[in-house]
Amino acid sequence: MKKSSSEKYVYLKKVGLSIRQARQKKGLSQESLALAADIDRSYIGGVERGERNIAIINLKKIADALKISVSQLLKRI
Amino acid sequence: MKKSSSEKYVYLKKVGLSIRQARQKKGLSQESLALAADIDRSYIGGVERGERNIAIINLKKIADALKISVSQLLKRI
Repeated sequence: MKKSSSEKYVYLKKVGLSIRQARQKKGLSQESLALAADIDRSYIGGVERGERNIAIINLKKIADALKISVSQLLKRI
Repeated sequence: MKKSSSEKYVYLKKVGLSIRQARQKKGLSQESLALAADIDRSYIGGVERGERNIAIINLKKIADALKISVSQLLKRI
């Protein structure tokens, strides 16, 4: 069954929120997370706002920079 | 710090293996998973072999089709 666009959008929003919360819990700015993960800051911003369908390797880089697992990062979703 | 290509490769292999194991545990073929997730079968094959840097929406579609969460799907990695 096809996922509707709005379902996708809601899920990406949840992923983004989860990353934002984990980042803030570590007391990191988007800039410092971007630097630690070797990802562009504006990309991190887009992911946190749920605007980007992030690929697993970038999610892993963000999780590594936050010193948690990808599974943990997505646990509350 | 930049992740080396081989690190990425190893991680994608682990993700793929995890999906394959979850699929087999449910007794599903690649074909039936592909159908349930509305994803091309050859794409599922590529993901399971660690050849594709899967985006989170497709990972969610696969997890939904397997009736588990993305977090659970990636738990052992």
